[in-house]
Amino acid sequence: MKIGFIGLGVMGAPMASHLLAGGHQLRTSINRSVPAAELTEAGLIVEATPSDVASSSDIVILMLPATDDVERVCFAGDGVLSGIRSGATVIDMSSIDPKATSEFAKRFARAGVEYLDAPVSGGQVGAKAASLTIMVGGPISAFERCLPLFEVMGKNITHVGESNGSGQTCKIANQIIVALTLEAVGEALVLAKQAGCDPAKVRQALMGGFAASRVLDVHGERMITRKFEPGFRIALHAKDLDLALKAAADVGVAVPSTALCRQLLNSSKANGDWNLDHSAIVRSLERMAGTS
Amino acid sequence: MKIGFIGLGVMGAPMASHLLAGGHQLRTSINRSVPAAELTEAGLIVEATPSDVASSSDIVILMLPATDDVERVCFAGDGVLSGIRSGATVIDMSSIDPKATSEFAKRFARAGVEYLDAPVSGGQVGAKAASLTIMVGGPISAFERCLPLFEVMGKNITHVGESNGSGQTCKIANQIIVALTLEAVGEALVLAKQAGCDPAKVRQALMGGFAASRVLDVHGERMITRKFEPGFRIALHAKDLDLALKAAADVGVAVPSTALCRQLLNSSKANGDWNLDHSAIVRSLERMAGTS
Repeated sequence: MKIGFIGLGVMGAPMASHLLAGGHQLRTSINRSVPAAELTEAGLIVEATPSDVASSSDIVILMLPATDDVERVCFAGDGVLSGIRSGATVIDMSSIDPKATSEFAKRFARAGVEYLDAPVSGGQVGAKAASLTIMVGGPISAFERCLPLFEVMGKNITHVGESNGSGQTCKIANQIIVALTLEAVGEALVLAKQAGCDPAKVRQALMGGFAASRVLDVHGERMITRKFEPGFRIALHAKDLDLALKAAADVGVAVPSTALCRQLLNSSKANGDWNLDHSAIVRSLERMAGTS
Repeated sequence: MKIGFIGLGVMGAPMASHLLAGGHQLRTSINRSVPAAELTEAGLIVEATPSDVASSSDIVILMLPATDDVERVCFAGDGVLSGIRSGATVIDMSSIDPKATSEFAKRFARAGVEYLDAPVSGGQVGAKAASLTIMVGGPISAFERCLPLFEVMGKNITHVGESNGSGQTCKIANQIIVALTLEAVGEALVLAKQAGCDPAKVRQALMGGFAASRVLDVHGERMITRKFEPGFRIALHAKDLDLALKAAADVGVAVPSTALCRQLLNSSKANGDWNLDHSAIVRSLERMAGTS
């Protein structure tokens, strides 16, 4: 299949390499940096603009940092919309604003282009291992057409809703739960340690019951062994909680713990932890307890 | 072994029945209610007072609702301390205040009695199935002596610290994580639903990644299917978070999300959800969103 792929960063590059290995014709545009040599050696074609990419592609995949980037790449003068053909499909795998996503999809629909929002979780490790969780919103027809591509990049692939933005909302739900579980584990382990318990034994005891989670398992371990190299950086999780708070405001839902946790990340930023793994949330709790 | 067991309620009765089935001689005292016939038929001996129970037992197990109950049963005129023999062991399996626990242990130590705090999680289901998680604080020698009894009642048994109160602190850590994960899942699912997603599909998508937890699995399902029969009542979880906030204040740790979650439970009480399962926390979030 002829696929455009714009955004070959730490996530996009390994995802693109799986598509190339799957026999697809892949093209990108010169963006802020030149694509990695291993991608061009594997057959990646480099066009001048997103418009050029779109005019030669059946499916255009985006994997960009933020809402503004997606808007610019799609709708600037030389953007995807200006080149894309009726009947093509856009898949935005970035993690961005659900409300903006819904608007972007409408603009493409007017050009006869179906749109899927398909953000991922699993990080760089999941991207490299082709084991990403992919949460997809948009027309089921487009989802079914694109499923073989998703299966090249991920493992747990769910169509969460027909309306565009559903995938982004699901990703936000994921990031809320992960952030708040991190804070939960952090509060529990800091309290336990300060009260004289061995946090490693507490974690072990708790893994057997209702407190068990992937976060207690993986990030709880990092908190105890003090391994805070990312992983997923606090700066990125803060961005995702900003999306969560905006989405909650847009639809009129109160998310008090999410709001509080976002404040804690300001303290992480203030203390130089912004680029540590998000398990380093525990360090802000430790500073508050005078035990850092 | 000659065992005293005081507190034969919804948790204590099935735990006692496992000890009886294991061939131990078990005695209790007449408390607020007469023990279930099936326990006396299985050989349970009923004494007049906790002091009488203690004077005939090598090990006295307590399974009582709150700190005050443990204090009264142990230290009233006819309490455990007045009858217990030097060399005996007290095991408090109630979920109570760690700081008070430390003081209770010291009082027994002066009488030559070792003390273990060994609160459990797993609920009535775990008590009946003998699959409780047991978190034990106190002297390792006493732990090793009592381990065969713990193994009759539970499965995941961890000695978390030599100092008394460590088990209670571990239980508090457990309850913090469970409560905050419940709120995390609640905030995420309410937002997702209000934004137009199918919460069941969101839960399914999230179970594959870092948001995965026992709470998302079990209680997330209850939130979606609206099954709020306890289970573990909000009233009891509120009591446990009160212990958490007191423990945090005692040792000087800030637990901001725990404090916020405790406030949410006030709203559960105000709206008649006090005796629903703790997964019904989601109903307070729904009321705030105007969607209940």
